Amino acid sequence: MGRWEPDARGRLAKAALALYAERGYEQTTVAEIAKRAGLTERTFFRHYADKREVLFAGAGELEGLFVGAVAGAPESAAPLDALTLGLDAVAEMFADRREFACRRQAVITANAELRERELIKLASLAAALTGTLRGRGVAQPAAGLAAEAAVAVFKIAFERWIVPAEERPMRELIRESLAELKAVTSGA
Amino acid sequence: MGRWEPDARGRLAKAALALYAERGYEQTTVAEIAKRAGLTERTFFRHYADKREVLFAGAGELEGLFVGAVAGAPESAAPLDALTLGLDAVAEMFADRREFACRRQAVITANAELRERELIKLASLAAALTGTLRGRGVAQPAAGLAAEAAVAVFKIAFERWIVPAEERPMRELIRESLAELKAVTSGA
Repeated sequence: MGRWEPDARGRLAKAALALYAERGYEQTTVAEIAKRAGLTERTFFRHYADKREVLFAGAGELEGLFVGAVAGAPESAAPLDALTLGLDAVAEMFADRREFACRRQAVITANAELRERELIKLASLAAALTGTLRGRGVAQPAAGLAAEAAVAVFKIAFERWIVPAEERPMRELIRESLAELKAVTSGA
Repeated sequence: MGRWEPDARGRLAKAALALYAERGYEQTTVAEIAKRAGLTERTFFRHYADKREVLFAGAGELEGLFVGAVAGAPESAAPLDALTLGLDAVAEMFADRREFACRRQAVITANAELRERELIKLASLAAALTGTLRGRGVAQPAAGLAAEAAVAVFKIAFERWIVPAEERPMRELIRESLAELKAVTSGA
């Protein structure tokens, strides 16, 4: 109890994902996750509020990184350039997490409540980015539209990145999606 | 019982919105809605599955109109041109519903469960539009990006349209948002 467990957080996340995939998210208990990770329930609750939090802890980190990069973009950067820096920061964060991301997505896709939670996180991200752009002096509705478009680019690049046959890094898929967005909005 | 009530559906919706605004959505019962409308509960359930349905019945109509207009666009129309026809159809549908839309939005904003439901409806709309564009031969990720961008244009134009001080028709706000989207995506 209370002693330091090397990478307890990572071990718990890995054990949780494995169990969600084996038995289903609903059927898995925190006690089982802790046991599989060779840790106590108490240790679990020092790292995660509940079993859902294991899946969404990264969303806060993602939002922080994305918003931070946009806020820190050169003052002269156009909205989409600032957002592109945010997308790059997100791609870097995901670079070594592909396996976790794929497993996580399979769990989320299979559960309506988790899919809703994911939509809420994306809406929260769009709202945070809109606020950051407003803080950089971008007027509405441009700020909201640019933020929503950037979230769409992330969402679609992410969906492509986790397809098993896809071998390109997320950064490349994000760049491609950005280029497609520009093409599709200039083509009409 | 069973006799024809002139515009029962509209009267029920109006009564429901008034009660949701007065007492809160959670506190309002179907019995109260029916009574306020001068109708029976049985009549209510002939028109709506439950009290939430009063708020979201229009979302199905919106999706049908939007998707239908995109599907019916000339074969030669670029993705964003086809989506613009869909946005115009939606603007026309809302033209005489501003008061209802404003009241509805106030109820939804005040309730987390209803806000989630609204996000789900918008995600469903984006998925349906993506499928329609794919059916028109638009490749991925262009189809998904164009669809998500069009939903963002609708969402942001709608938010602006229901601001009390706003006097322009939704169609104009949609055109403005489309122009802003093009400017913001071409500017970087």
